[in-house]
Amino acid sequence: MELLISSISGVVALVSAIIISISILKKDQGNERMKKIAKAIQDGALAFLLEEYKTMYLWVAVFALIIALSISPYASLFFVIGTVFSTLSGFFGMTVATRSSVRTTQAATKTTGEALFIAFSGGSVMGLIVVGLGVIGSLLSYLITVKFIPQLSPLVAITAYSIGASFVALFARVGGGIYTKAADVGADLVGKVEAGIPEDDPRNPAVIADNVGDNVGDIAGMGADLYESYVGSITAAIILGVFVLGESTSSFVYTIVGFGILSSIIGIISSLIASKMNVAPQKALNFGSIVANILAMVVFFVFSLKYQNGLNYFAAIVSGLIVGLLIGFITQYYTSEKPVKEVAKSASVGGAATTILSGMAVGMESSFLPLLLIAIVIIIAYKFSGLFGIALAGLGMLSTLGVSLSVDAYGPIADNAGGIAEMSNLPHTVREKTDVLDALGNTTAAMGKGFAIGSAALTALALFSSYIQTMKMGSLDIISPYTISGMFIGTSLPFLFSALAIVAVSRTAGNMVEEVRRQFREISGLILGKADPDYKTCVAISTKGALRNMVLPSLIAIVSPFVGFIVLGAMGKDFTGGLLAGALLSGVILAIYMANAGAVWDNAKKYIEQGNYGGKGSEAHRASVVGDTVGDPLKDTAGPSINILIKLMTTISLLFGPYLVKFFK
Amino acid sequence: MELLISSISGVVALVSAIIISISILKKDQGNERMKKIAKAIQDGALAFLLEEYKTMYLWVAVFALIIALSISPYASLFFVIGTVFSTLSGFFGMTVATRSSVRTTQAATKTTGEALFIAFSGGSVMGLIVVGLGVIGSLLSYLITVKFIPQLSPLVAITAYSIGASFVALFARVGGGIYTKAADVGADLVGKVEAGIPEDDPRNPAVIADNVGDNVGDIAGMGADLYESYVGSITAAIILGVFVLGESTSSFVYTIVGFGILSSIIGIISSLIASKMNVAPQKALNFGSIVANILAMVVFFVFSLKYQNGLNYFAAIVSGLIVGLLIGFITQYYTSEKPVKEVAKSASVGGAATTILSGMAVGMESSFLPLLLIAIVIIIAYKFSGLFGIALAGLGMLSTLGVSLSVDAYGPIADNAGGIAEMSNLPHTVREKTDVLDALGNTTAAMGKGFAIGSAALTALALFSSYIQTMKMGSLDIISPYTISGMFIGTSLPFLFSALAIVAVSRTAGNMVEEVRRQFREISGLILGKADPDYKTCVAISTKGALRNMVLPSLIAIVSPFVGFIVLGAMGKDFTGGLLAGALLSGVILAIYMANAGAVWDNAKKYIEQGNYGGKGSEAHRASVVGDTVGDPLKDTAGPSINILIKLMTTISLLFGPYLVKFFK
Repeated sequence: MELLISSISGVVALVSAIIISISILKKDQGNERMKKIAKAIQDGALAFLLEEYKTMYLWVAVFALIIALSISPYASLFFVIGTVFSTLSGFFGMTVATRSSVRTTQAATKTTGEALFIAFSGGSVMGLIVVGLGVIGSLLSYLITVKFIPQLSPLVAITAYSIGASFVALFARVGGGIYTKAADVGADLVGKVEAGIPEDDPRNPAVIADNVGDNVGDIAGMGADLYESYVGSITAAIILGVFVLGESTSSFVYTIVGFGILSSIIGIISSLIASKMNVAPQKALNFGSIVANILAMVVFFVFSLKYQNGLNYFAAIVSGLIVGLLIGFITQYYTSEKPVKEVAKSASVGGAATTILSGMAVGMESSFLPLLLIAIVIIIAYKFSGLFGIALAGLGMLSTLGVSLSVDAYGPIADNAGGIAEMSNLPHTVREKTDVLDALGNTTAAMGKGFAIGSAALTALALFSSYIQTMKMGSLDIISPYTISGMFIGTSLPFLFSALAIVAVSRTAGNMVEEVRRQFREISGLILGKADPDYKTCVAISTKGALRNMVLPSLIAIVSPFVGFIVLGAMGKDFTGGLLAGALLSGVILAIYMANAGAVWDNAKKYIEQGNYGGKGSEAHRASVVGDTVGDPLKDTAGPSINILIKLMTTISLLFGPYLVKFFK
Repeated sequence: MELLISSISGVVALVSAIIISISILKKDQGNERMKKIAKAIQDGALAFLLEEYKTMYLWVAVFALIIALSISPYASLFFVIGTVFSTLSGFFGMTVATRSSVRTTQAATKTTGEALFIAFSGGSVMGLIVVGLGVIGSLLSYLITVKFIPQLSPLVAITAYSIGASFVALFARVGGGIYTKAADVGADLVGKVEAGIPEDDPRNPAVIADNVGDNVGDIAGMGADLYESYVGSITAAIILGVFVLGESTSSFVYTIVGFGILSSIIGIISSLIASKMNVAPQKALNFGSIVANILAMVVFFVFSLKYQNGLNYFAAIVSGLIVGLLIGFITQYYTSEKPVKEVAKSASVGGAATTILSGMAVGMESSFLPLLLIAIVIIIAYKFSGLFGIALAGLGMLSTLGVSLSVDAYGPIADNAGGIAEMSNLPHTVREKTDVLDALGNTTAAMGKGFAIGSAALTALALFSSYIQTMKMGSLDIISPYTISGMFIGTSLPFLFSALAIVAVSRTAGNMVEEVRRQFREISGLILGKADPDYKTCVAISTKGALRNMVLPSLIAIVSPFVGFIVLGAMGKDFTGGLLAGALLSGVILAIYMANAGAVWDNAKKYIEQGNYGGKGSEAHRASVVGDTVGDPLKDTAGPSINILIKLMTTISLLFGPYLVKFFK
């Protein structure tokens, strides 16, 4: 019965997504110029995704083969299902999002409420597809294995499925992140700073690449990323539940997930109705989230009463939710309140150098309280429900992902709608309306990031505990030289990974800068708007940079779990345990640092652009642009990928560990 | 007998230091203007140190009282001895160094060889005092306790002594670091960039503060820092040796230390003779180091033969030494070869933002290989001699600290000599000679940093293992919720600490910038050299900034070991274990990242100043100055302090842990 609720909820989510998509496609796309620009962006995004998939699926095929030969062909199948579902989430979510953007622009020529409705509808398609496919894939892997593949453990099946999800997410995040940030930096440094033309100006040769990047990086990348998080948190809860407490907990977990999805759908509908009724945008968005979360908690509570220890589980879930909220508030504080003003002030006093220093310091300081809260929730959740409780707390943070991801995905749609308005030379009033929606997206995104970070830490920790259980180690002693060696190397991997990602963005952006400069220099009449720029070369530069550079960082996650066993034999299990723990610790803090430092630089720039400390064109503004540019690859390429990196390392170790320890004995 | 060697070596080191000091003081100080400037710097440095000591010794008194009341009055006494010896190392080393600088300038009016002789003599005084006081203090604490205080464990005595060393070092590094970098940034941003006057120009109001800063930060701070490292590595080796293998290992360790000191003295004398003979400066310096290291290894080998398992110990020591060398080479590569040119190139292509990004990426990437090597040496040393082997490897890296610290301390003396030449308007040829010596110092410093980082990691790890032993925990399980919570919080502490240090520099530098701008604006004739600047106000700003901001970051180290026990009771021992492990891992990598990113920015700027990518005054140069300014507080304030932070946290936990676990049971 309980499994029914989660499968129904998955189907309802997908059906809702289809209905909403159809209703979006019926909306007006605006004038010919708008259609042409939107088409260029859609085609560019599609072209890149197809190229990305070609490279990626080559590696998927190799890894599927490795799984088939070493673990089981069935496990390999579930891995592939994970990759395909993840790809579908990103692909469909983005396809609808790109089509929503232009329609949002058109709607913004009328009312803000109508624009909000379309933009949020577009975001909700992403949210619903991610949770729908996420739960259906997990459930299918689990049930098929239980019923038809007795020789395979269902835990192995969902682990393989989860690896597929993480695998694609890592490539998509890194590749999309390199693409979008190289284009962004190139467009900003030459267009805004050197040529002095506004953002999204059609004279900027990198403008199409920049807008394509927003779609492939911020939307498709984010979709794959959150799909990964969602699947990861379900996987961790199921594995630890079954391991520690037995088979029956799986239906508890799936039902909680199902109720969370249903609550999210009701929340989404509430927000849509509110925006139709022209409620203020912020309130309309908040309304849906509040409805979904309260509803979910009530249902979880009632449902928990049915289970022995159910209330303890419920307490763990709620503690996760509360800590997720608190981390969200802390993130919001550090990236919007006093710290932003301080960074802006340091831009006006000491220029670029002090801007960088103060943003760095904010980023570093901002990581303390979230880690403290994570530490606290670990102890609380453990007290209530042991290791299973830690996984439940992570799941609690993501239980209403359907609605929060809708809000997250809505942001880039509003952002792109503004870009299309600019490029189509629509009246300023249109851009002003989309700007309001965009700004709102940034605030709510901070909240979403809090949940993403908190759940990533708890999920990775739960998966790590599963590794220790699966390897039958009982405990993992830090002062074993193998463990501590693994920890040192593990600690360095997120740094190495980030270095590769940053260099990739920095180099590709360098090529972009040179190309944009060349076009301004060589295409006569371009700056006067009398000649068209060559958009395609810029798109090609971003594409090439992304494809060439996304593989190496991703390989860190895929190869590192094997090294310890190959070099150290059976002691590899201690080493790999240390490796995972080290990567977890340094990965979580680096991700928080990068996300918040990047956001505070971004927002300090916006604060100055609002007219503070001399406003646009002032020395302070120039300094703040440097800060923003430095922050871009941190917050949108390296930072969000690290969460995936640590989980992928852990699930791969979890799947292969028992095999490797036998093989290299 | 063996203890005799180490006590004699300590005394010989101190006597040598006194003889060399006297010979330096006999040298010519140059003309009246030089004397006046040197006097101003000496007085400024002395004034700051006295202020710093006032604030610091207040905290020393409080902590001494806590030790006396909770542990033992005798332990408190050894703690105070540690603080006093550390203060003396920094104070005397600096006093001689400031007097050496002006004499080096005067000697540079004649030959490079003579200038090298004086500068290196000055550095060697620091080197000899540090190792001399280091070993004498440790030995005294150990022997006095064994002979006269039967109720106190000698291990507790040397731990308390070690805490004293770290305590003062942390304050000195943070306080001196804030002072020097605020003055440096202030002098550079306004003087060099805005007013366009050269470095060390007497018209710059912050120039005296800048030169005072070089002394109190780079020299006194470094002296206290390395004293701390040296004492820490001895302490860790003694504790683990005695714990794991019994009483007799203490004489092995002290004798190794003694032979290392005697080898260093012979190495120093070799370098001094070589520079007297006008050997090329690089060769003269290398000669001494090579002599000392080869000699030490031969003596260690022969001595090891006497001991059962001695060759295993010897292998651990040698593996530490080799890894220290390798880390040094890696550091040198990342901060002087291809990476520097790449950062310089990105300065010319994309300006400040890409300069920052590429330097960050270099710093992150550069942390991977050192951590890999540390992981390898842990396994090797452990295979040879267990946990004691890890401590021996750390000791091996620092065994010839006497000579390597002499080289380290020589750098700032040469740097200051150049400053005095500039401020005294001496002919350009003088500055050119000191510049040669200064550049040389930077190269050798990279090598020294490799040893400092490697030994800090191993020493902290050995002390951490001692904590686990002392608490009678046997092992520390990562997946205990208390341990993992501690690890999360521990991981965040070096980030929090760095944030506080960076903000302190950034704010104080901001005040300095405003003051220097004010003086250029308000003192008419200043820029034309017709009016004197108000140096004192700038000195006061740095002093105030340092004193006000050095306490809070230092308190992190002092308070954090207590929190776990207070909140969690007896489970605090797991929590604190995790806390120490987390801080160790994130601290080591952050220290490497900061040191190398800072150095690569610094050197990229110098590379451009040599005429590449447009040379001084070009766009690329301006971008590289931003990079250098960002790197300053990372490499000279936060970075080097983190090594002390993690060791101080660990030794405090080691001393108080057994007491706290009883108290809060």
